[in-house]
Amino acid sequence: MSRFFSTKHEKLIPYTPGEQPKDMKYIKLNTNESPYPPSPEAVKAAENEANLLRLYPDPECSALCEDIAAYCKVEKENVVLSNGSDEILNFIFMAYGDNETPFIFPDITYGFYNVFCTVNNIPYEEIPLKDDFTIDFNDYCGKGKNVVIANPNAPTGIFAPLCEIERLAQSNPDNIVVVDEAYVDFGGESAIPLTKKYKNLIVVQTFSKSRSMAGARLGFAVADKELIKDLNTIRFSINPYNINRMTMAAGSGAIRDNEYFEKNRQEIIATREKTAAALYMMGFTMTPSKANFLFAKSDKISGEELYKKLRENGILVRHFTGKRICEYNRITIGTPKEMEIFVNTVKKILKD
Amino acid sequence: MSRFFSTKHEKLIPYTPGEQPKDMKYIKLNTNESPYPPSPEAVKAAENEANLLRLYPDPECSALCEDIAAYCKVEKENVVLSNGSDEILNFIFMAYGDNETPFIFPDITYGFYNVFCTVNNIPYEEIPLKDDFTIDFNDYCGKGKNVVIANPNAPTGIFAPLCEIERLAQSNPDNIVVVDEAYVDFGGESAIPLTKKYKNLIVVQTFSKSRSMAGARLGFAVADKELIKDLNTIRFSINPYNINRMTMAAGSGAIRDNEYFEKNRQEIIATREKTAAALYMMGFTMTPSKANFLFAKSDKISGEELYKKLRENGILVRHFTGKRICEYNRITIGTPKEMEIFVNTVKKILKD
Repeated sequence: MSRFFSTKHEKLIPYTPGEQPKDMKYIKLNTNESPYPPSPEAVKAAENEANLLRLYPDPECSALCEDIAAYCKVEKENVVLSNGSDEILNFIFMAYGDNETPFIFPDITYGFYNVFCTVNNIPYEEIPLKDDFTIDFNDYCGKGKNVVIANPNAPTGIFAPLCEIERLAQSNPDNIVVVDEAYVDFGGESAIPLTKKYKNLIVVQTFSKSRSMAGARLGFAVADKELIKDLNTIRFSINPYNINRMTMAAGSGAIRDNEYFEKNRQEIIATREKTAAALYMMGFTMTPSKANFLFAKSDKISGEELYKKLRENGILVRHFTGKRICEYNRITIGTPKEMEIFVNTVKKILKD
Repeated sequence: MSRFFSTKHEKLIPYTPGEQPKDMKYIKLNTNESPYPPSPEAVKAAENEANLLRLYPDPECSALCEDIAAYCKVEKENVVLSNGSDEILNFIFMAYGDNETPFIFPDITYGFYNVFCTVNNIPYEEIPLKDDFTIDFNDYCGKGKNVVIANPNAPTGIFAPLCEIERLAQSNPDNIVVVDEAYVDFGGESAIPLTKKYKNLIVVQTFSKSRSMAGARLGFAVADKELIKDLNTIRFSINPYNINRMTMAAGSGAIRDNEYFEKNRQEIIATREKTAAALYMMGFTMTPSKANFLFAKSDKISGEELYKKLRENGILVRHFTGKRICEYNRITIGTPKEMEIFVNTVKKILKD
């Protein structure tokens, strides 16, 4: 860092996104993108909007907020949009975290939560998952701290039943409970209906995964109107025009095309189950994933070695170096053809 | 705000963007948008990218950083991109401001600077412009504080010569000097060449105005490599994928089409001068604008009344309520036809 950089950021270690190497064409199973293009309705809407770029987008994001509200069966005033769900997560940490109000989340989860805390100078505590990588919700109940839970969790894919989310919201009435549902469409169940009952509950979702729009950057939060007002206060104090016109239009196109969405997510779930079965046959251990990825390890090869050998064979998966998870790899679910190549490559690697 | 909202934001008053009324079709001269569409190259590039939305954008933004660097005659490592220039301004305040290092800027300038300070809990001082709305650069020299200057300034449009910017950078060697050049392409001169000499100088520009891409959200900063590293540390700690694929592609299309850019900005400058002449003829007082707007007042009608009457006549301009500027209106330069209607409407209002 330069000598001008504020000392308040001394301990800041930025988030590391999954690698995007440009040296050759890989089968990309490392950043949880969808293997399918976005809905043709989304593509068409974005293309149409490209001609109108001279005008600012609607800072209220009215049209898309209405479309998302209709889909989620809430009011428009219960929705706030963001430039990817990372942005709305940052707004939430900014709005509700301070020295007196720390955040708690699992030790193994989305690696960005602790970065958001550090960059915003908010104290946090990472609570160890149980040995089987499930969350012990007792650790989070009635703690007087803000809670963030990814459900399904990353990189394990494990989904916790909604009664546990409800316990969190109920037992922390003076704190915010955030449920990050980036992967909920692949077999989980959304906590959005609970936001009507619990005024301290915020559900975050993204168009990056199940709606095939990682490249468009669109996330949103659903919560009580008062919380949405807070988040808009932050949004209008940082970047009121945070969603560009093309992404906003694409979002409306995508969320209205429910048939396409259903077909794709069912396809990905089916491919996941088939891939998981094949890995079991090869002796892999896996967490029970309800996400668009698998989290797998083998006694026959270290996590790092498998990652490296797959990479040499033109397949990228995500390997984390954390102590409890370094034997695992996170494998995004691609097309059936890509997963067939993946399975055959793993077979070959294990044989060598 | 909700009862959960952090008390650290008690004094936060969000920025108010120019109104975007939906009740009827207005001639929009209130948010400094370009009256011309973006380059056909930008539109085509964005459309082509819409098919690739399933994949995350390049978090390094390599291709567009290279194109901007080539245009600005700097290295790729001297450039960082943002989701509109508001975002990079926020990153700058975050990176370099703290209790020991406040920011100073004029009392009359872009109304977002003090919001950025407040939301990030950074002390700031607003230094009054001189009576003629010019900046007294002596007020900013050798102060041991970070400086932000919009050049041309908003909403006055007054451009300060680069020797004054150089004095700022030279006399504040241990502080950051930020030059916000949102409007520089309409008759000013960029301080970008000075970033090679002064390692504490950051120049911010946007694609919203002179490149007709307000709806795409694209801004950037040019500075010494060490400062760009700082800003990337912040970017990767907040939103590493902050620029969507379509906007990134459109940005490359726009910056490569220099002929289109030159034609449009010359057209806007010519229309500005013609409109200014017509307003002078009607007895208006104006600041000497080098931006895509005029800042004008008349002894014959109050600023607020003119704003309201124009609005009734289907023309939106921007009226600010600040004590020193409430008699003025900021009038964005539209097409020659729009400005003809504007001038005739003002004539009619003054006659009534």
